[in-house]
Amino acid sequence: MRDFSHDHSMLALNTATLGHNLEGHGAGWSPEQVIEACAERGLGGITFWRREIGRRAIEIGDRVRGAGMQVAGLCRTPFLTGPLAPPNRQAIIDDFKASIEMAHELGAPVLTIVTGGVIEGSHSITESLSRVQELVAAMAPVAADANVVLALEPLNPVYGGNRSCLVTVRDAIDMCQAIGADNVQIAIDVYHVWWDTSLAAELKRAGKGRIAGYHLCDWLADTTDVQLDRGMMGDGVADLRQIRAAVEATGYDGYCEVEIFSAANWWKRPPGEVLDTIVERFRAVC
Amino acid sequence: MRDFSHDHSMLALNTATLGHNLEGHGAGWSPEQVIEACAERGLGGITFWRREIGRRAIEIGDRVRGAGMQVAGLCRTPFLTGPLAPPNRQAIIDDFKASIEMAHELGAPVLTIVTGGVIEGSHSITESLSRVQELVAAMAPVAADANVVLALEPLNPVYGGNRSCLVTVRDAIDMCQAIGADNVQIAIDVYHVWWDTSLAAELKRAGKGRIAGYHLCDWLADTTDVQLDRGMMGDGVADLRQIRAAVEATGYDGYCEVEIFSAANWWKRPPGEVLDTIVERFRAVC
Repeated sequence: MRDFSHDHSMLALNTATLGHNLEGHGAGWSPEQVIEACAERGLGGITFWRREIGRRAIEIGDRVRGAGMQVAGLCRTPFLTGPLAPPNRQAIIDDFKASIEMAHELGAPVLTIVTGGVIEGSHSITESLSRVQELVAAMAPVAADANVVLALEPLNPVYGGNRSCLVTVRDAIDMCQAIGADNVQIAIDVYHVWWDTSLAAELKRAGKGRIAGYHLCDWLADTTDVQLDRGMMGDGVADLRQIRAAVEATGYDGYCEVEIFSAANWWKRPPGEVLDTIVERFRAVC
Repeated sequence: MRDFSHDHSMLALNTATLGHNLEGHGAGWSPEQVIEACAERGLGGITFWRREIGRRAIEIGDRVRGAGMQVAGLCRTPFLTGPLAPPNRQAIIDDFKASIEMAHELGAPVLTIVTGGVIEGSHSITESLSRVQELVAAMAPVAADANVVLALEPLNPVYGGNRSCLVTVRDAIDMCQAIGADNVQIAIDVYHVWWDTSLAAELKRAGKGRIAGYHLCDWLADTTDVQLDRGMMGDGVADLRQIRAAVEATGYDGYCEVEIFSAANWWKRPPGEVLDTIVERFRAVC
Protein backbone atom coordinates (compact mmCIF):
# COMPACT_ATOMS: atom_id res chain seq x y z
CA MET A 1 0.00 0.00 0.00
CA ARG A 2 1.31 3.41 -0.95
CA ASP A 3 2.47 5.79 1.76
CA PHE A 4 0.95 9.23 1.24
CA SER A 5 1.81 10.66 4.63
CA HIS A 6 4.38 12.99 3.06
CA ASP A 7 3.30 12.91 -0.58
CA HIS A 8 0.17 14.11 -2.29
CA SER A 9 1.31 13.93 -5.88
CA MET A 10 -1.34 11.24 -6.51
CA LEU A 11 -4.10 13.36 -5.03
CA ALA A 12 -6.68 14.58 -7.53
CA LEU A 13 -9.59 16.96 -7.19
CA ASN A 14 -13.03 16.22 -8.53
CA THR A 15 -14.44 19.66 -9.17
CA ALA A 16 -17.77 18.70 -7.59
CA THR A 17 -15.92 19.24 -4.32
CA LEU A 18 -15.86 22.98 -5.01
CA GLY A 19 -19.48 23.01 -6.13
CA HIS A 20 -18.73 22.19 -9.78
CA ASN A 21 -17.27 25.67 -10.24
CA LEU A 22 -20.73 26.87 -11.08
CA GLU A 23 -22.44 30.03 -9.93
CA GLY A 24 -24.73 29.25 -7.04
CA HIS A 25 -22.71 26.21 -6.01
CA GLY A 26 -19.53 26.85 -4.10
CA ALA A 27 -17.46 29.87 -5.04
CA GLY A 28 -18.21 29.86 -8.74
CA TRP A 29 -14.57 29.48 -9.67
CA SER A 30 -13.70 29.10 -13.35
CA PRO A 31 -11.83 25.98 -14.50
CA GLU A 32 -8.74 28.21 -14.78
CA GLN A 33 -8.99 29.28 -11.15
CA VAL A 34 -9.39 25.65 -10.06
CA ILE A 35 -6.38 24.60 -12.14
CA GLU A 36 -4.23 27.33 -10.69
CA ALA A 37 -5.22 26.60 -7.10
CA CYS A 38 -4.62 22.86 -7.48
CA ALA A 39 -1.25 23.39 -9.16
CA GLU A 40 -0.16 25.80 -6.43
CA ARG A 41 -0.84 23.14 -3.83
CA GLY A 42 0.90 20.32 -5.68
CA LEU A 43 -2.08 18.16 -6.57
CA GLY A 44 -1.53 15.69 -9.38
CA GLY A 45 -4.79 15.75 -11.29
CA ILE A 46 -8.26 17.15 -11.79
CA THR A 47 -11.52 15.50 -12.82
CA PHE A 48 -14.07 17.77 -14.44
CA TRP A 49 -17.78 17.62 -15.11
CA ARG A 50 -19.10 18.14 -18.62
CA ARG A 51 -21.22 21.11 -17.67
CA GLU A 52 -18.08 23.04 -16.75
CA ILE A 53 -16.30 22.37 -20.02
CA GLY A 54 -18.68 23.51 -22.73
CA ARG A 55 -16.77 23.83 -26.00
CA ARG A 56 -13.44 24.41 -24.31
CA ALA A 57 -12.29 20.80 -23.81
CA ILE A 58 -9.01 21.06 -25.70
CA GLU A 59 -8.14 24.42 -24.15
CA ILE A 60 -8.88 23.29 -20.60
CA GLY A 61 -7.04 19.99 -21.01
CA ASP A 62 -3.95 21.81 -22.28
CA ARG A 63 -4.19 24.26 -19.42
CA VAL A 64 -4.15 21.42 -16.87
CA ARG A 65 -1.11 19.80 -18.46
CA GLY A 66 0.58 23.16 -18.84
CA ALA A 67 0.23 23.59 -15.09
CA GLY A 68 2.09 20.33 -14.53
CA MET A 69 -0.92 18.16 -13.75
CA GLN A 70 -3.06 15.62 -15.59
CA VAL A 71 -6.75 15.45 -16.34
CA ALA A 72 -7.75 12.49 -14.19
CA GLY A 73 -11.18 11.92 -15.64
CA LEU A 74 -14.49 13.26 -16.88
CA CYS A 75 -17.93 12.97 -15.28
CA ARG A 76 -19.93 11.52 -17.01
CA THR A 77 -22.06 9.68 -19.54
CA PRO A 78 -25.82 10.24 -19.60
CA PHE A 79 -27.97 8.01 -17.45
CA LEU A 80 -28.64 4.89 -19.49
CA THR A 81 -31.79 3.67 -17.77
CA GLY A 82 -34.51 4.89 -15.45
CA PRO A 83 -36.48 8.08 -15.06
CA LEU A 84 -33.52 10.44 -15.54
CA ALA A 85 -32.22 8.94 -18.80
CA PRO A 86 -32.67 10.72 -22.15
CA PRO A 87 -36.02 9.92 -23.74
CA ASN A 88 -34.99 7.19 -26.15
CA ARG A 89 -32.17 4.90 -27.17
CA GLN A 90 -30.85 7.15 -29.92
CA ALA A 91 -30.70 10.15 -27.59
CA ILE A 92 -28.80 8.08 -25.04
CA ILE A 93 -26.32 6.85 -27.67
CA ASP A 94 -25.82 10.36 -29.07
CA ASP A 95 -25.09 11.83 -25.67
CA PHE A 96 -22.89 8.88 -24.73
CA LYS A 97 -20.82 9.52 -27.87
CA ALA A 98 -20.64 13.23 -27.08
CA SER A 99 -19.27 12.44 -23.64
CA ILE A 100 -16.63 10.12 -25.12
CA GLU A 101 -15.66 12.83 -27.59
CA MET A 102 -15.30 15.39 -24.82
CA ALA A 103 -13.14 13.01 -22.77
CA HIS A 104 -10.94 12.52 -25.81
CA GLU A 105 -10.57 16.25 -26.46
CA LEU A 106 -9.89 16.94 -22.81
CA GLY A 107 -7.27 14.20 -22.66
CA ALA A 108 -9.22 12.48 -19.89
CA PRO A 109 -8.25 8.80 -19.75
CA VAL A 110 -11.41 7.83 -17.88
CA LEU A 111 -15.09 8.57 -18.42
CA THR A 112 -17.37 7.71 -15.52
CA ILE A 113 -20.66 5.92 -16.05
CA VAL A 114 -23.50 6.40 -13.62
CA THR A 115 -25.94 3.89 -14.96
CA GLY A 116 -29.33 5.37 -14.17
CA GLY A 117 -32.08 3.74 -12.13
CA VAL A 118 -34.59 0.97 -12.54
CA ILE A 119 -36.42 0.94 -15.87
CA GLU A 120 -39.77 2.57 -15.29
CA GLY A 121 -42.59 0.09 -14.91
CA SER A 122 -40.22 -2.89 -14.93
CA HIS A 123 -39.91 -3.43 -11.16
CA SER A 124 -36.71 -5.24 -12.12
CA ILE A 125 -33.19 -4.29 -11.18
CA THR A 126 -31.98 -7.34 -13.13
CA GLU A 127 -33.62 -6.25 -16.36
CA SER A 128 -32.25 -2.75 -15.83
CA LEU A 129 -28.71 -4.04 -15.37
CA SER A 130 -29.06 -6.05 -18.57
CA ARG A 131 -29.96 -2.93 -20.52
CA VAL A 132 -26.99 -1.06 -19.05
CA GLN A 133 -24.69 -3.91 -19.99
CA GLU A 134 -25.93 -3.95 -23.55
CA LEU A 135 -25.45 -0.20 -23.97
CA VAL A 136 -21.99 -0.13 -22.42
CA ALA A 137 -20.90 -3.09 -24.54
CA ALA A 138 -22.08 -1.22 -27.63
CA MET A 139 -20.16 1.92 -26.67
CA ALA A 140 -16.94 0.21 -25.57
CA PRO A 141 -15.39 0.10 -29.06
CA VAL A 142 -16.24 3.77 -29.64
CA ALA A 143 -14.50 4.64 -26.40
CA ALA A 144 -11.54 2.42 -27.24
CA ASP A 145 -11.07 4.28 -30.52
CA ALA A 146 -10.89 7.49 -28.49
CA ASN A 147 -8.45 6.01 -25.94
CA VAL A 148 -11.03 6.35 -23.22
CA VAL A 149 -11.70 3.88 -20.43
CA LEU A 150 -15.32 3.59 -19.37
CA ALA A 151 -15.59 3.33 -15.60
CA LEU A 152 -18.73 1.70 -14.27
CA GLU A 153 -19.32 3.26 -10.88
CA PRO A 154 -21.55 1.32 -8.50
CA LEU A 155 -23.48 3.82 -6.39
CA ASN A 156 -24.73 3.46 -2.85
CA PRO A 157 -27.96 1.40 -2.83
CA VAL A 158 -29.85 4.48 -1.68
CA TYR A 159 -29.63 5.68 -5.30
CA GLY A 160 -30.90 2.39 -6.71
CA GLY A 161 -34.34 3.65 -7.64
CA ASN A 162 -33.67 6.57 -9.91
CA ARG A 163 -29.91 7.14 -10.35
CA SER A 164 -28.09 3.81 -10.47
CA CYS A 165 -29.42 0.30 -10.80
CA LEU A 166 -25.75 -0.66 -10.37
CA VAL A 167 -25.29 -0.55 -6.60
CA THR A 168 -22.69 -3.16 -5.71
CA VAL A 169 -19.08 -3.78 -6.62
CA ARG A 170 -20.12 -7.37 -7.14
CA ASP A 171 -22.57 -6.47 -9.91
CA ALA A 172 -20.06 -4.04 -11.45
CA ILE A 173 -17.41 -6.74 -11.67
CA ASP A 174 -19.90 -9.21 -13.09
CA MET A 175 -20.85 -6.67 -15.73
CA CYS A 176 -17.22 -5.93 -16.61
CA GLN A 177 -16.49 -9.59 -16.98
CA ALA A 178 -19.59 -10.19 -19.07
CA ILE A 179 -18.68 -7.33 -21.44
CA GLY A 180 -15.07 -8.48 -21.56
CA ALA A 181 -13.57 -5.30 -23.04
CA ASP A 182 -10.25 -4.09 -21.67
CA ASN A 183 -11.49 -0.50 -21.53
CA VAL A 184 -14.59 -1.26 -19.47
CA GLN A 185 -13.53 -1.05 -15.86
CA ILE A 186 -14.91 0.08 -12.51
CA ALA A 187 -14.59 3.09 -10.23
CA ILE A 188 -14.57 2.64 -6.47
CA ASP A 189 -15.99 5.49 -4.40
CA VAL A 190 -15.80 5.44 -0.61
CA TYR A 191 -19.25 7.00 -0.31
CA HIS A 192 -20.79 4.16 -2.26
CA VAL A 193 -18.89 1.15 -0.94
CA TRP A 194 -17.82 1.92 2.63
CA TRP A 195 -20.46 -0.42 4.08
CA ASP A 196 -19.55 -3.41 1.94
CA THR A 197 -17.63 -5.95 4.02
CA SER A 198 -17.11 -8.06 0.90
CA LEU A 199 -15.16 -5.30 -0.88
CA ALA A 200 -11.69 -6.80 -0.56
CA ALA A 201 -12.87 -10.26 -1.62
CA GLU A 202 -14.79 -8.85 -4.59
CA LEU A 203 -11.87 -6.75 -5.77
CA LYS A 204 -9.64 -9.79 -5.49
CA ARG A 205 -12.11 -11.64 -7.69
CA ALA A 206 -11.98 -8.77 -10.20
CA GLY A 207 -8.28 -9.31 -10.64
CA LYS A 208 -5.64 -6.92 -11.94
CA GLY A 209 -6.32 -3.91 -14.12
CA ARG A 210 -10.03 -3.53 -13.53
CA ILE A 211 -10.03 -0.39 -11.40
CA ALA A 212 -10.06 2.88 -13.29
CA GLY A 213 -10.56 5.25 -10.41
CA TYR A 214 -10.65 5.60 -6.63
CA HIS A 215 -12.80 8.34 -5.12
CA LEU A 216 -12.41 9.73 -1.63
CA CYS A 217 -14.78 11.34 0.84
CA ASP A 218 -16.39 10.04 4.02
CA TRP A 219 -19.81 8.85 5.14
CA LEU A 220 -21.14 11.01 7.94
CA ALA A 221 -22.84 8.94 10.66
CA ASP A 222 -25.70 11.41 10.92
CA THR A 223 -25.86 12.41 7.28
CA THR A 224 -28.70 14.81 6.60
CA ASP A 225 -28.91 14.50 2.81
CA VAL A 226 -27.85 11.55 0.70
CA GLN A 227 -27.12 13.74 -2.30
CA LEU A 228 -25.33 16.74 -0.90
CA ASP A 229 -24.02 15.95 2.57
CA ARG A 230 -20.86 13.98 1.99
CA GLY A 231 -18.14 14.24 4.59
CA MET A 232 -14.49 15.26 4.46
CA MET A 233 -12.11 12.36 4.93
CA GLY A 234 -11.78 11.62 8.63
CA ASP A 235 -15.10 13.16 9.63
CA GLY A 236 -17.17 10.04 9.05
CA VAL A 237 -17.34 6.31 9.72
CA ALA A 238 -15.59 4.85 6.67
CA ASP A 239 -12.47 2.76 7.18
CA LEU A 240 -10.42 4.72 4.64
CA ARG A 241 -7.17 2.83 5.05
CA GLN A 242 -8.84 -0.56 4.73
CA ILE A 243 -10.72 0.49 1.62
CA ARG A 244 -7.61 1.85 -0.08
CA ALA A 245 -5.70 -1.28 0.88
CA ALA A 246 -8.35 -3.37 -0.89
CA VAL A 247 -8.20 -1.13 -3.96
CA GLU A 248 -4.40 -1.13 -4.14
CA ALA A 249 -4.19 -4.88 -3.60
CA THR A 250 -5.50 -5.16 -7.17
CA GLY A 251 -2.46 -3.26 -8.41
CA TYR A 252 -4.25 0.08 -8.67
CA ASP A 253 -1.67 2.87 -8.67
CA GLY A 254 -3.70 5.76 -10.02
CA TYR A 255 -5.11 8.93 -8.46
CA CYS A 256 -7.01 9.23 -5.24
CA GLU A 257 -9.70 11.65 -6.32
CA VAL A 258 -11.56 13.68 -3.73
CA GLU A 259 -15.25 14.08 -4.55
CA ILE A 260 -17.31 15.74 -1.85
CA PHE A 261 -20.81 17.01 -2.54
CA SER A 262 -21.51 19.18 0.48
CA ALA A 263 -23.98 21.98 -0.11
CA ALA A 264 -24.34 23.06 3.49
CA ASN A 265 -20.73 22.82 4.58
CA TRP A 266 -17.71 22.57 2.26
CA TRP A 267 -19.36 24.36 -0.67
CA LYS A 268 -19.89 27.34 1.59
CA ARG A 269 -16.23 27.67 2.52
CA PRO A 270 -13.51 29.46 0.57
CA PRO A 271 -12.20 27.00 -2.06
CA GLY A 272 -8.59 27.56 -1.00
CA GLU A 273 -9.43 26.49 2.54
CA VAL A 274 -11.23 23.40 1.20
CA LEU A 275 -8.19 22.44 -0.87
CA ASP A 276 -5.83 22.98 2.06
CA THR A 277 -8.01 20.75 4.23
CA ILE A 278 -8.08 18.07 1.54
CA VAL A 279 -4.29 17.98 1.32
CA GLU A 280 -3.96 17.81 5.09
CA ARG A 281 -6.55 15.05 5.51
CA PHE A 282 -5.22 13.09 2.56
CA ARG A 283 -1.82 12.90 4.19
CA ALA A 284 -3.19 12.23 7.67
CA VAL A 285 -6.09 9.78 7.38
CA CYS A 286 -6.40 8.36 3.87
CA MET B 1 -44.32 -20.23 -3.66
CA ARG B 2 -47.53 -19.53 -1.82
CA ASP B 3 -50.47 -18.13 -3.76
CA PHE B 4 -51.96 -15.17 -1.94
CA SER B 5 -54.11 -13.89 -4.78
CA HIS B 6 -57.27 -14.96 -2.94
CA ASP B 7 -55.96 -15.37 0.59
CA HIS B 8 -54.55 -12.88 3.04
CA SER B 9 -54.62 -15.01 6.16
CA MET B 10 -50.79 -14.78 6.29
CA LEU B 11 -50.83 -11.00 6.01
CA ALA B 12 -49.68 -9.18 9.14
CA LEU B 13 -49.64 -5.52 10.03
CA ASN B 14 -46.65 -3.80 11.57
CA THR B 15 -48.23 -0.96 13.48
CA ALA B 16 -45.58 1.48 12.21
CA THR B 17 -47.69 1.47 9.05
CA LEU B 18 -50.42 3.37 10.88
CA GLY B 19 -47.94 5.74 12.50
CA HIS B 20 -47.26 3.52 15.54
CA ASN B 21 -50.74 4.30 16.86
CA LEU B 22 -49.28 7.31 18.58
CA GLU B 23 -50.72 10.79 18.80
CA GLY B 24 -49.10 13.00 16.22
CA HIS B 25 -48.26 10.07 13.95
CA GLY B 26 -51.08 8.70 11.87
CA ALA B 27 -54.53 8.56 13.37
CA GLY B 28 -53.47 7.92 16.93
CA TRP B 29 -55.41 4.66 17.14
CA SER B 30 -55.12 2.59 20.32
CA PRO B 31 -53.83 -0.99 20.11
CA GLU B 32 -57.44 -2.09 20.64
CA GLN B 33 -58.63 -0.11 17.63
CA VAL B 34 -55.84 -1.58 15.49
CA ILE B 35 -56.66 -5.11 16.63
CA GLU B 36 -60.34 -4.66 15.83
CA ALA B 37 -59.70 -3.16 12.38
CA CYS B 38 -57.23 -5.92 11.44
CA ALA B 39 -59.54 -8.68 12.66
CA GLU B 40 -62.48 -7.21 10.73
CA ARG B 41 -60.41 -7.40 7.54
CA GLY B 42 -59.17 -10.93 8.10
CA LEU B 43 -55.48 -10.23 8.68
CA GLY B 44 -53.57 -12.99 10.42
CA GLY B 45 -51.22 -11.13 12.72
CA ILE B 46 -49.94 -7.88 14.18
CA THR B 47 -46.45 -6.75 15.12
CA PHE B 48 -46.25 -4.03 17.75
CA TRP B 49 -43.62 -1.57 18.92
CA ARG B 50 -42.63 -1.43 22.55
CA ARG B 51 -43.63 2.20 22.93
CA GLU B 52 -47.25 1.25 22.22
CA ILE B 53 -47.41 -1.52 24.79
CA GLY B 54 -46.30 0.05 28.05
CA ARG B 55 -47.27 -2.25 30.93
CA ARG B 56 -50.12 -3.87 29.02
CA ALA B 57 -48.24 -6.65 27.21
CA ILE B 58 -50.27 -9.58 28.58
CA GLU B 59 -53.57 -7.78 28.07
CA ILE B 60 -52.80 -6.74 24.50
CA GLY B 61 -51.45 -10.16 23.53
CA ASP B 62 -54.62 -11.81 24.84
CA ARG B 63 -56.74 -9.29 22.98
CA VAL B 64 -55.03 -10.15 19.69
CA ARG B 65 -55.54 -13.87 20.18
CA GLY B 66 -59.10 -13.32 21.36
CA ALA B 67 -59.76 -11.59 18.04
CA GLY B 68 -58.61 -14.70 16.17
CA MET B 69 -55.13 -13.45 15.21
CA GLN B 70 -51.57 -13.91 16.45
CA VAL B 71 -48.96 -11.49 17.64
CA ALA B 72 -46.43 -11.75 14.83
CA GLY B 73 -43.56 -9.99 16.54
CA LEU B 74 -42.26 -7.14 18.64
CA CYS B 75 -40.06 -4.22 17.60
CA ARG B 76 -37.40 -4.08 19.05
CA THR B 77 -34.25 -4.40 21.12
CA PRO B 78 -32.22 -1.29 21.94
CA PHE B 79 -29.50 -0.27 19.53
CA LEU B 80 -26.43 -2.25 20.54
CA THR B 81 -23.74 -0.03 19.01
CA GLY B 82 -23.26 3.44 17.65
CA PRO B 83 -24.43 6.90 18.62
CA LEU B 84 -28.03 5.90 19.38
CA ALA B 85 -27.25 3.01 21.74
CA PRO B 86 -27.76 3.29 25.51
CA PRO B 87 -24.76 4.81 27.26
CA ASN B 88 -23.02 1.67 28.48
CA ARG B 89 -23.00 -2.09 28.25
CA GLN B 90 -25.10 -2.66 31.36
CA ALA B 91 -27.79 -0.27 30.13
CA ILE B 92 -27.86 -2.08 26.79
CA ILE B 93 -28.15 -5.49 28.46
CA ASP B 94 -30.87 -4.29 30.82
CA ASP B 95 -32.97 -2.87 28.00
CA PHE B 96 -32.33 -5.92 25.83
CA LYS B 97 -33.66 -8.12 28.66
CA ALA B 98 -36.68 -5.84 29.10
CA SER B 99 -37.50 -6.23 25.41
CA ILE B 100 -37.25 -10.02 25.65
CA GLU B 101 -39.52 -9.98 28.69
CA MET B 102 -42.08 -7.85 26.87
CA ALA B 103 -42.03 -10.19 23.85
CA HIS B 104 -42.61 -13.11 26.20
CA GLU B 105 -45.55 -11.44 27.95
CA LEU B 106 -47.07 -10.37 24.67
CA GLY B 107 -46.73 -13.87 23.24
CA ALA B 108 -44.59 -12.51 20.39
CA PRO B 109 -42.51 -15.32 18.92
CA VAL B 110 -40.02 -12.91 17.34
CA LEU B 111 -38.11 -9.90 18.67
CA THR B 112 -36.43 -7.75 16.02
CA ILE B 113 -32.88 -6.51 16.45
CA VAL B 114 -31.79 -3.30 14.77
CA THR B 115 -28.13 -3.38 15.58
CA GLY B 116 -27.14 0.28 15.82
CA GLY B 117 -24.47 2.03 13.82
CA VAL B 118 -20.72 2.17 13.68
CA ILE B 119 -18.99 2.45 17.07
CA GLU B 120 -18.14 6.10 17.56
CA GLY B 121 -14.53 6.88 16.83
CA SER B 122 -13.83 3.38 15.53
CA HIS B 123 -14.19 4.05 11.79
CA SER B 124 -14.78 0.29 11.62
CA ILE B 125 -17.91 -1.49 10.51
CA THR B 126 -16.11 -4.79 11.17
CA GLU B 127 -15.38 -3.98 14.80
CA SER B 128 -18.96 -2.79 15.21
CA LEU B 129 -20.34 -6.05 13.82
CA SER B 130 -18.13 -7.98 16.23
CA ARG B 131 -19.58 -6.12 19.18
CA VAL B 132 -23.13 -6.78 17.95
CA GLN B 133 -22.34 -10.46 17.58
CA GLU B 134 -20.96 -10.73 21.09
CA LEU B 135 -24.01 -9.03 22.61
CA VAL B 136 -26.54 -11.08 20.64
CA ALA B 137 -24.72 -14.30 21.51
CA ALA B 138 -24.86 -13.34 25.18
CA MET B 139 -28.61 -12.64 25.00
CA ALA B 140 -29.59 -15.68 22.92
CA PRO B 141 -29.97 -18.05 25.93
CA VAL B 142 -32.06 -15.46 27.78
CA ALA B 143 -34.33 -15.19 24.75
CA ALA B 144 -34.47 -18.98 24.38
CA ASP B 145 -35.66 -19.33 27.97
CA ALA B 146 -38.48 -16.91 27.08
CA ASN B 147 -39.36 -18.80 23.86
CA VAL B 148 -38.35 -15.78 21.82
CA VAL B 149 -36.50 -15.82 18.50
CA LEU B 150 -34.06 -12.92 17.98
CA ALA B 151 -34.30 -11.66 14.41
CA LEU B 152 -31.24 -9.82 13.12
CA GLU B 153 -32.55 -7.38 10.55
CA PRO B 154 -30.01 -6.06 8.03
CA LEU B 155 -30.96 -2.50 7.16
CA ASN B 156 -30.43 -0.62 3.94
CA PRO B 157 -26.81 0.61 3.74
CA VAL B 158 -28.08 4.18 3.95
CA TYR B 159 -28.56 3.55 7.68
CA GLY B 160 -25.07 2.13 8.14
CA GLY B 161 -23.64 5.13 9.92
CA ASN B 162 -25.91 5.58 12.89
CA ARG B 163 -28.68 2.97 12.92
CA SER B 164 -27.35 -0.36 11.69
CA CYS B 165 -23.83 -1.52 11.06
CA LEU B 166 -25.55 -4.67 9.78
CA VAL B 167 -26.52 -3.75 6.22
CA THR B 168 -26.37 -6.92 4.17
CA VAL B 169 -28.10 -10.27 4.27
CA ARG B 170 -24.66 -11.75 3.76
CA ASP B 171 -23.34 -10.28 7.01
CA ALA B 172 -26.53 -11.25 8.84
CA ILE B 173 -26.19 -14.86 7.77
CA ASP B 174 -22.52 -14.89 8.69
CA MET B 175 -23.41 -13.57 12.13
CA CYS B 176 -26.18 -16.14 12.63
CA GLN B 177 -23.86 -18.93 11.69
CA ALA B 178 -21.08 -17.62 13.92
CA ILE B 179 -23.45 -17.42 16.91
CA GLY B 180 -24.91 -20.82 16.11
CA ALA B 181 -28.02 -20.59 18.29
CA ASP B 182 -31.31 -21.92 16.88
CA ASN B 183 -33.19 -18.86 18.09
CA VAL B 184 -30.92 -16.32 16.40
CA GLN B 185 -32.32 -15.82 12.93
CA ILE B 186 -32.77 -13.04 10.37
CA ALA B 187 -35.59 -10.81 9.16
CA ILE B 188 -35.84 -9.86 5.50
CA ASP B 189 -37.37 -6.48 4.70
CA VAL B 190 -38.03 -5.43 1.11
CA TYR B 191 -37.00 -1.85 1.85
CA HIS B 192 -33.59 -2.97 3.01
CA VAL B 193 -32.77 -5.71 0.51
CA TRP B 194 -34.59 -4.91 -2.74
CA TRP B 195 -31.34 -3.84 -4.46
CA ASP B 196 -29.37 -6.95 -3.55
CA THR B 197 -29.04 -9.20 -6.59
CA SER B 198 -27.32 -11.81 -4.44
CA LEU B 199 -30.36 -12.24 -2.19
CA ALA B 200 -31.54 -15.61 -3.50
CA ALA B 201 -28.04 -17.08 -3.42
CA GLU B 202 -27.39 -15.77 0.07
CA LEU B 203 -30.67 -17.12 1.42
CA LYS B 204 -29.89 -20.48 -0.14
CA ARG B 205 -26.57 -20.41 1.69
CA ALA B 206 -28.42 -19.64 4.94
CA GLY B 207 -30.36 -22.86 4.62
CA LYS B 208 -33.65 -23.86 6.20
CA GLY B 209 -35.11 -22.32 9.31
CA ARG B 210 -33.09 -19.12 9.42
CA ILE B 211 -35.76 -16.60 8.44
CA ALA B 212 -37.89 -15.30 11.27
CA GLY B 213 -39.77 -12.61 9.41
CA TYR B 214 -40.56 -11.13 6.01
CA HIS B 215 -41.45 -7.44 5.80
CA LEU B 216 -43.27 -5.81 2.93
CA CYS B 217 -43.31 -2.31 1.51
CA ASP B 218 -41.79 -0.83 -1.65
CA TRP B 219 -38.85 1.40 -2.55
CA LEU B 220 -40.05 4.56 -4.27
CA ALA B 221 -37.82 5.50 -7.21
CA ASP B 222 -37.84 9.16 -6.22
CA THR B 223 -37.93 8.69 -2.48
CA THR B 224 -37.79 11.99 -0.64
CA ASP B 225 -36.84 10.75 2.83
CA VAL B 226 -35.01 7.56 3.69
CA GLN B 227 -36.65 7.32 7.10
CA LEU B 228 -40.26 8.18 6.50
CA ASP B 229 -41.05 7.85 2.78
CA ARG B 230 -41.53 4.15 2.21
CA GLY B 231 -43.88 3.12 -0.54
CA MET B 232 -46.98 0.93 -0.65
CA MET B 233 -46.42 -2.39 -2.40
CA GLY B 234 -46.65 -1.87 -6.15
CA ASP B 235 -45.81 1.84 -6.07
CA GLY B 236 -42.04 1.38 -6.23
CA VAL B 237 -39.26 -0.45 -8.03
CA ALA B 238 -38.84 -3.58 -5.92
CA ASP B 239 -39.37 -6.96 -7.54
CA LEU B 240 -41.75 -8.18 -4.86
CA ARG B 241 -42.52 -11.58 -6.33
CA GLN B 242 -38.86 -12.42 -6.86
CA ILE B 243 -37.95 -11.40 -3.33
CA ARG B 244 -40.73 -13.47 -1.80
CA ALA B 245 -39.76 -16.41 -3.98
CA ALA B 246 -36.22 -16.22 -2.60
CA VAL B 247 -37.52 -16.02 0.96
CA GLU B 248 -39.95 -18.91 0.56
CA ALA B 249 -37.37 -21.09 -1.18
CA THR B 250 -35.78 -21.42 2.27
CA GLY B 251 -38.97 -22.99 3.57
CA TYR B 252 -40.28 -19.79 5.16
CA ASP B 253 -44.02 -20.11 5.66
CA GLY B 254 -44.65 -17.32 8.16
CA TYR B 255 -46.35 -13.96 7.95
CA CYS B 256 -45.82 -11.30 5.31
CA GLU B 257 -45.73 -8.24 7.52
CA VAL B 258 -46.44 -4.83 6.04
CA GLU B 259 -44.23 -2.11 7.51
CA ILE B 260 -44.57 1.28 5.82
CA PHE B 261 -43.13 4.41 7.42
CA SER B 262 -44.77 7.18 5.40
CA ALA B 263 -45.17 10.45 7.23
CA ALA B 264 -46.32 12.51 4.26
CA ASN B 265 -48.63 10.03 2.61
CA TRP B 266 -50.01 6.89 4.24
CA TRP B 267 -49.84 8.19 7.81
CA LYS B 268 -52.06 11.06 6.76
CA ARG B 269 -54.83 8.80 5.43
CA PRO B 270 -57.64 7.19 7.40
CA PRO B 271 -56.25 3.94 8.87
CA GLY B 272 -59.16 1.90 7.51
CA GLU B 273 -58.35 3.06 3.98
CA VAL B 274 -54.69 2.16 4.52
CA LEU B 275 -55.61 -1.33 5.69
CA ASP B 276 -57.99 -1.86 2.77
CA THR B 277 -55.24 -0.82 0.34
CA ILE B 278 -52.77 -3.19 2.00
CA VAL B 279 -55.13 -6.14 1.60
CA GLU B 280 -55.80 -5.27 -2.04
CA ARG B 281 -52.12 -4.80 -2.92
CA PHE B 282 -51.06 -7.89 -1.01
CA ARG B 283 -53.36 -10.02 -3.11
CA ALA B 284 -52.51 -8.26 -6.37
CA VAL B 285 -48.76 -7.61 -6.44
CA CYS B 286 -46.96 -9.31 -3.55
